[in-house]
Amino acid sequence: MLITEIIEKKREGHAHSYDEIAAMIRGISDGTVADYQLTAWMMAICIRGMTDEETAYLTSAMVDSGETMDLSDLPGVKVDKHSTGGVGDTTTLVVAPLVAACGGTVAKLSGRGLAHSGGTLDKLESVPGVCIEQSLERFKQIVRKTGLCVIGQSKNLNPADKKMYALRDVTATVQSIPLIASSIMSKKIASGADAIVLDVKTGSGAFMETLDEAKKLARDMVNIGQNVGRRTVALITDMNRPLGMAIGNGLEMKEAIEVLSGKVAYDDPLAVVCFKLSGQMLKLSGIVQSAEDALPMLKNAIESGEALRRLRDMLVELGGDALYVDEPERLVRVRQIIPVCSDNSGCVGEMDAKLIGTAALLLGAGREKAEDSIDPAVGILMKKRYGDRVEAGEELAVFYVNDDSQLERAMSLFKQGIAIKTEPPQPLPLVYDIVE
Amino acid sequence: MLITEIIEKKREGHAHSYDEIAAMIRGISDGTVADYQLTAWMMAICIRGMTDEETAYLTSAMVDSGETMDLSDLPGVKVDKHSTGGVGDTTTLVVAPLVAACGGTVAKLSGRGLAHSGGTLDKLESVPGVCIEQSLERFKQIVRKTGLCVIGQSKNLNPADKKMYALRDVTATVQSIPLIASSIMSKKIASGADAIVLDVKTGSGAFMETLDEAKKLARDMVNIGQNVGRRTVALITDMNRPLGMAIGNGLEMKEAIEVLSGKVAYDDPLAVVCFKLSGQMLKLSGIVQSAEDALPMLKNAIESGEALRRLRDMLVELGGDALYVDEPERLVRVRQIIPVCSDNSGCVGEMDAKLIGTAALLLGAGREKAEDSIDPAVGILMKKRYGDRVEAGEELAVFYVNDDSQLERAMSLFKQGIAIKTEPPQPLPLVYDIVE
Repeated sequence: MLITEIIEKKREGHAHSYDEIAAMIRGISDGTVADYQLTAWMMAICIRGMTDEETAYLTSAMVDSGETMDLSDLPGVKVDKHSTGGVGDTTTLVVAPLVAACGGTVAKLSGRGLAHSGGTLDKLESVPGVCIEQSLERFKQIVRKTGLCVIGQSKNLNPADKKMYALRDVTATVQSIPLIASSIMSKKIASGADAIVLDVKTGSGAFMETLDEAKKLARDMVNIGQNVGRRTVALITDMNRPLGMAIGNGLEMKEAIEVLSGKVAYDDPLAVVCFKLSGQMLKLSGIVQSAEDALPMLKNAIESGEALRRLRDMLVELGGDALYVDEPERLVRVRQIIPVCSDNSGCVGEMDAKLIGTAALLLGAGREKAEDSIDPAVGILMKKRYGDRVEAGEELAVFYVNDDSQLERAMSLFKQGIAIKTEPPQPLPLVYDIVE
Repeated sequence: MLITEIIEKKREGHAHSYDEIAAMIRGISDGTVADYQLTAWMMAICIRGMTDEETAYLTSAMVDSGETMDLSDLPGVKVDKHSTGGVGDTTTLVVAPLVAACGGTVAKLSGRGLAHSGGTLDKLESVPGVCIEQSLERFKQIVRKTGLCVIGQSKNLNPADKKMYALRDVTATVQSIPLIASSIMSKKIASGADAIVLDVKTGSGAFMETLDEAKKLARDMVNIGQNVGRRTVALITDMNRPLGMAIGNGLEMKEAIEVLSGKVAYDDPLAVVCFKLSGQMLKLSGIVQSAEDALPMLKNAIESGEALRRLRDMLVELGGDALYVDEPERLVRVRQIIPVCSDNSGCVGEMDAKLIGTAALLLGAGREKAEDSIDPAVGILMKKRYGDRVEAGEELAVFYVNDDSQLERAMSLFKQGIAIKTEPPQPLPLVYDIVE
C-alpha cells in the first residue's frame, strides 16, 4: 500500500489495519516516510481519532520499531513515572530522588518540552555539564549507584516515537488521546520498567483540558500497560494553574532543589502532588502497603537530606557541576529580572496555565519549533498563587529575561492568563481521581 | 500569532481571518513555516474545509506572495487554459497549438504530475532538450513568434503555491476544493492572462469524483476569476476513463502529435474535448462568436498542418529536438513492451481511471513523492476503450516498461481498474456542463 493511500484512509475517517499502522511506523523509523507526510497523517489522526484497537496497534508497532531495554539484571521493582506535561510542574526532579531515598529503584527516560509545557530533559540540562545521552550500561550503573537515573530516550529505542514527538508540538498535533497514549506507553513499555505511575494533568494548562478527556486518556494508558503485564496506575491531577511557582528550566531545577531541601512547606501544591506520586510509586514497588503509609518515610527523606543527596549524586554521575546544586542561584543568572505587577487589587482567580506557559516560551524557556534552542536561565517566577490576595501595583511574578524581543507579548499573555477578582475563588482540588 | 496557533485553529474547525492566512502564506514563502507545519495545516483544511471568504483570502494572499507577470505588451487577448488533472489527458499539448493556429494568443504556465494524474511540464520534458524554465522576456518572445508558449511557473511567481503544490500529492491533501481553487486561480491571476478556460474533471480518475463537487469547484473558480476582472469559464468534463489512449509522458506527447497530425478521428473523445476547450478559448479571445463556430477553423488548422507546426516551433524554441516531433516513436523507446490481455470476453464497462493512473505511476510515469524522478518513456497505451468489445486473451493495453520492479502490482491495479461486462455499458457524456 502506498503511504499516500494510508494517509488518505485516515483523512477520510476510516480505521487502519495493523499492517497499515506497522507500514507507517516502519517508514517513519527508516526515513522513507517524510516528515511532511508524517505530520499530515498525525493531523488526520488528531481530527478523525483512532479506535482503541488502532491505539493498541500503534503502541505495539512503536515498541517493535526499535530496541527494548532489559533492566532485569537490576535488583528490585524498577518503577517509572510519567507526567502528561504541565506548566511549572517539576515533579520528576522531586519524586525520583524521594523514591530512591526511600529504597525504590527509579530507572526513567524523559522527554523535552512540548509547546507551552516543560520537559524534564531540558530541566536536567539547566545544570551545566549534564549529558542526558548515556549508554544502557552506564544508565544501569548510575541506577545501581544512586537508586535513580533519568536520561533521554536512546535513538534506537522507539525511533518512530522520537520523530513523532519532536514534530507534534510544532504542528499543533499534540492534543490527541491516541497519539499521547501510544507515545507514552510505547516508551514506558520499551524502556523496561516493571511498574508505571502516570500523572495525567487536566485543566487549562494541560493537553487534556477537560476531566473527561483526562479520564479517557488515563483509562486507555492503564489498560495498555496492564495488558502487557506492567503494574500501572494513573493519578489525575490539576493543571488549571501552574503547579509550582517556577516556570522555566533552571528556575524549576532550583525549585526542585528547594523542595528536597525542606525549604518548601509540605502543604505547598507541588509538595502535595509529589508526595502522592511518590506514595503510589513506593506502593507499586512493594515498599509500602498504601500510598498514605509512605508519607512519614518521604518527609524523613527530605529532613535527613538523603533525597537531595540522591538528586545531587545523579546529576554528578550525569556529568553535572555540583556547584549549581549547592548554589542554585547560579542556575538562573540572567540580564534582567523584571517585576510584573497587578493592575488591580483583588484575589487571584482563574488562571490560564497555557497562556502563562506560552509567556515563558516567548521569553525563551520553551520551543515553538523542534529545532528552536532554549535558554535554561529564563522564565517566570510566580509571586502569587491561585486564591492569594494582591494589591494594585504589587508583584504577581518576576520575569527572568535575557532576550527581551518578545517581552511585551509575553507580559500581555501572562496578564491575560490571570484573572484578578474581588471575591476569593473556589478552592481547586489537586488530585481528582486515581485510575488503577 | 504563533504558527502553531493558526494550525490549531483550523484543526478545531474554525475559520481563519485574512491576517492569519496572510501570515501562513508569508511564512511558507520565506521558509519560516516548515514543510511539516504546512502539510499539517493543509490536512486540517482538507478535513475541516474553508468558507468562500477564506478561499478568496487564500487566493489573494498567494497572488501577493510573489511577482505577477505583466503580459500587457503582448498583442490581443492572452488566453490561458487549465485542467484540474486527469489520466491520459493530454489536452494542453493539443489545444494550445490549435488555438494559436487559429489566431489566439496562448501564454500559459503549467504544472507537474500530481499522484495518479499527469502534468504538462513532465510531458513537455519528454522531448529531449526542452527547458521549461524561461525568463519572462524569453517567454513573451516565444509567444510573439509562435502564438503560444507553455513553461513552468517561475520561482518568484507565487512561491507559496509552488511549495504547497509539491507537497500536496505526497501527503494525500490534493482533494480539497479550497486548496485546488486557490492554487489554480492564484497562478492564473498572477500569470497575467486576460481570459481563462477551466477544464474541471469529474469521475473516478479526477480529484473531484462526484459531479456536485466538480460543479462546486468550477463555480468557486469562475467566481474568483470574474471578481478580479478575468473572463473565466469552466467546462465540466468526464474522467471516469482515461481521456486519450496514452498514459505516460512520452506516450501522451506522441498522442498529441497524432491528434495534431490528423491521425486521430475527430469523434475520438480526446479530439472532441480538445475542440470544445479550443472553441471556448477562441470565443473568450473574441475570435469567434460561439464555441461551435470554431469547429471548421480548428479542423482546418489540423488539415493544413499549421497546428502541428505551432507545437513543433514552440518545442524547438524551448530547446527541444525536432526529430522527436517528426519521429514520435523516439519518445517511447523502452526495454520491454508488455501486452496486458483480458482474462474474459465481454465489453469494457466501468473503468477506474485513478487505478489505471496509479498503475502508470508504478511503472515510473508518475511520482509518489515530490523528489521522485520520472521516466519519460514508460507508461500505458490502451488498446480498448470504454464500451469496446474484447475477447479473452485479447490485448486491453500494452505497458511500456524500463524498470519492472513493480510491474506485477501495476498489472494487478490496471486489471482491477477495468470491469469486463457481458452487456455494453451505458454511454458516458464527455462534457457535463459549462459554468460561466
